[in-house]
Amino acid sequence: MVVEASCCGDIFLTTGTGRLVRIKGKDELCGFCILQIDEEVAKLLELKARLGGDDGKHQFVLKTAKGTRDYNPKQMAIREKVFNTIISCFKRHGAETIDTPVFELKETLTGKYGEDSKLIYDLKDQGGELLSLRYDLTVPFARYLAMNKITNIKRYHIAKVYRRDNPAMTRGRYREFYQCDFDIAGQYDAMIPDAECLKIVYEILSQLDLGDFRIKVNDRRILDGMFAVCGVPDDKFRTICSTVDKLDKMPWEDVKKEMVNEKGLSEEAADQIGEYVSMQGGMDLAERLLQDQKMSQSKQACAGLSDIKLLFSYLQLFQVTDKVVFDLSLARGLDYYTGIIYEAVLSQAGVESVSVGSVAGGGRYDGLVGMFDPKGRKVPCVGVSIGIERIFSIMEQKAEASAEKVRTTEVQVMVASAQKNLLEERLKLVTELWNAGIKAEVMYKKNPKLLSQLQHCEESGIPLVAILGEQELKDGVVKLRVVATREEVDICRADLIEEVRRRTSDAS
Amino acid sequence: MVVEASCCGDIFLTTGTGRLVRIKGKDELCGFCILQIDEEVAKLLELKARLGGDDGKHQFVLKTAKGTRDYNPKQMAIREKVFNTIISCFKRHGAETIDTPVFELKETLTGKYGEDSKLIYDLKDQGGELLSLRYDLTVPFARYLAMNKITNIKRYHIAKVYRRDNPAMTRGRYREFYQCDFDIAGQYDAMIPDAECLKIVYEILSQLDLGDFRIKVNDRRILDGMFAVCGVPDDKFRTICSTVDKLDKMPWEDVKKEMVNEKGLSEEAADQIGEYVSMQGGMDLAERLLQDQKMSQSKQACAGLSDIKLLFSYLQLFQVTDKVVFDLSLARGLDYYTGIIYEAVLSQAGVESVSVGSVAGGGRYDGLVGMFDPKGRKVPCVGVSIGIERIFSIMEQKAEASAEKVRTTEVQVMVASAQKNLLEERLKLVTELWNAGIKAEVMYKKNPKLLSQLQHCEESGIPLVAILGEQELKDGVVKLRVVATREEVDICRADLIEEVRRRTSDAS
Repeated sequence: MVVEASCCGDIFLTTGTGRLVRIKGKDELCGFCILQIDEEVAKLLELKARLGGDDGKHQFVLKTAKGTRDYNPKQMAIREKVFNTIISCFKRHGAETIDTPVFELKETLTGKYGEDSKLIYDLKDQGGELLSLRYDLTVPFARYLAMNKITNIKRYHIAKVYRRDNPAMTRGRYREFYQCDFDIAGQYDAMIPDAECLKIVYEILSQLDLGDFRIKVNDRRILDGMFAVCGVPDDKFRTICSTVDKLDKMPWEDVKKEMVNEKGLSEEAADQIGEYVSMQGGMDLAERLLQDQKMSQSKQACAGLSDIKLLFSYLQLFQVTDKVVFDLSLARGLDYYTGIIYEAVLSQAGVESVSVGSVAGGGRYDGLVGMFDPKGRKVPCVGVSIGIERIFSIMEQKAEASAEKVRTTEVQVMVASAQKNLLEERLKLVTELWNAGIKAEVMYKKNPKLLSQLQHCEESGIPLVAILGEQELKDGVVKLRVVATREEVDICRADLIEEVRRRTSDAS
Repeated sequence: MVVEASCCGDIFLTTGTGRLVRIKGKDELCGFCILQIDEEVAKLLELKARLGGDDGKHQFVLKTAKGTRDYNPKQMAIREKVFNTIISCFKRHGAETIDTPVFELKETLTGKYGEDSKLIYDLKDQGGELLSLRYDLTVPFARYLAMNKITNIKRYHIAKVYRRDNPAMTRGRYREFYQCDFDIAGQYDAMIPDAECLKIVYEILSQLDLGDFRIKVNDRRILDGMFAVCGVPDDKFRTICSTVDKLDKMPWEDVKKEMVNEKGLSEEAADQIGEYVSMQGGMDLAERLLQDQKMSQSKQACAGLSDIKLLFSYLQLFQVTDKVVFDLSLARGLDYYTGIIYEAVLSQAGVESVSVGSVAGGGRYDGLVGMFDPKGRKVPCVGVSIGIERIFSIMEQKAEASAEKVRTTEVQVMVASAQKNLLEERLKLVTELWNAGIKAEVMYKKNPKLLSQLQHCEESGIPLVAILGEQELKDGVVKLRVVATREEVDICRADLIEEVRRRTSDAS
């Protein structure tokens, strides 16, 4: 069955057997026709597969899929350290965690990401449901809340998400990447959970020791109010908003050009917006704008500005105002935000910070859960996403630059032998250590050389070696060697476990 | 373009515009034709989408994809506990960890899983590479080794894998599920790494406290040798092997019937196999079979039996022989095993254990990495996979049955107020606690009732409440309440952090 023509709502089809079918409208096409389409598609794809795929011949390539990567043990060690810092913070603030499947029904994601929907990975229709890989963790979270009728939760979720974007892997942009989200859902008093999200960003970025940073805050209602009083037509709010969002990458002149030339905004409107979006400050700026003749005409803007004031009062109590800036140029791309929005950037000078961009972002989205609820019941939410891949990139660069070696295992002691035929004795001793909870290794050779056993310790940063020899066995001792200093001391076998624990109390 | 007919290698096509094209053979179909196929497929799928998908009208269903599930906070708490036990064990044995992407090039998975390949999830062809979701962690591991030319590594990998199987979710069988793999790659002396894998299974199952268990071991070479001496034709080894694999679910009589009636084996051959596969023992059985008139005729079997003997000698040193059984009926499904194989089963009586099945399994696969190496260079590997979903199911059932509540957060103290208008004081105090690393919560209400604050503590198992009131503020103290006993004591504000730490030293 082939699409021949489609005109004025009519669709013409030729079936595989040459029959011409005229279809008046969508409702008149029956399930049988759809089944036929499926069959024809399957036949064509099978033919294509028989022909050897897109290049016509088989050439096996040993690689990971475009835009993805393996993590090697060193990268995993860094990743684990970063995750531990972040998870500790989330737990300190009393968050629970959930997990959702890596794919969702396609329609769960439909209509949530605007233009970016084209970046969603779909699964092949192998019969059954139409599925897509998750694009973020926020939409699955909202689906989870609606599905389980949960109205209050403070949760974090760390998992991979998928976007068929153009990868820029050197700058930490991948098609498969981690998101690291903390969200508070529930009907609460204004700005208290919002302020805690900012406190969390502050704590995480401080503890990861990434250098100085700033957290910009704004409010969608202030942006919309600003657009209204500057004379932007209602139907252009979202598109002008995404142009404003480019201010961190483009100078104002170019942003203005886009507004006027591409989006058809008047020159005066653009200039008025230009004045506002250059403003930065704190609670004082919010107060000043509440008195601003133009801005104060918008109810929406006033509501947003009052909330910014309240937010800053809580941020003072949380002791984080030194890094937070009220910045009217902050817009954020996503459609679903309804109130406060924020974004953290590293403010270190140099090329690195430019390429790294924002390292955390989030905001309030009070309408998303309602999109999934059959009765449209809303659950107000506010959350933050830590830009973990960018942080990994920075940490990896730092590890490369540092003299300190990244350990990929936590082994405390290597059980070694100085002579031949001691495999059994090594296995006995390592069993004693394992059974006592000591992290220990033994080489998988019958008669390894002492030198190669010591080399393995140097390479993987194992601090201690327990060396067995005929003499040690006779004396009931073990020679304990400190790899770093080469110091050796005989330890009574019965005291070995305690001695290893004592000497490696940091590592265990 | 539509497939009209295909006969004697000729393929006839009608293009969308009615043109008939006759194709003699695969090589004569040009890239242009393939492009046309792609276009037609796209048109048809677009039409299908316009028609509203498979059911012709939109009906939004709030659910997760078939065979998948969300993990709620309680399930996550159990999962975290299980993972911690397993990861601690892997780390105690000196393993590094890696991660690989959730999808691989389709051809990386091709030809690795035999019949089960039909269960692989493919991604939709959206232009670019053909991708599939990973089916296990072993094939990506082998791909990783070959791609990075790694010849020695001891690594663990915990991640989700995907199989379009018939889900049986009550028995812990899902389409998306975790695998938990530990593998040792490298050319080492026989049976030392193999024995360590069994030691690891022993440690993990003991520590998870799942009740009594047994670890069955066998060797593919013993199976093949046994088939040979029993008169199974070479080309039937694999298919008879998969019939033997059903012995844990079917009685011998049915297995024999399948061998004779379905697989065409002679009655005598089947009976001889039946004798062998009923044998169970330890090192002594291996010794006996080495003397067995028939078995000893097979070089392969002898090599396997000698290795079983060696394995048991190491298992004695590792102190795990009490749970390990040499069992000639163990076959394991996967094609890629080349030596020792093993499987752990819970031996508790009752319905549960029957439905749970094996909780760990693995073996030696010396040929898999070579399949990815352009020059076929082999890297010998042995590994074990912990059947984590089944373990989750058991742990969840245990948690349900137990009186003890599963905590989903680790909050040590709730900052509460006894009177109105103390939000600022609460936020100040909780900031002090957070800054000191204490896990603390505060309700997001201006004036929450004391009762609702206390109730929240009871519900989520928070052990302490730091209560502020006018009097406490005046006196410079905090009233610390122990939730379990309702005991209350005034603590000097400067001592609060130390007091909370002291009283919750287990929980932190």
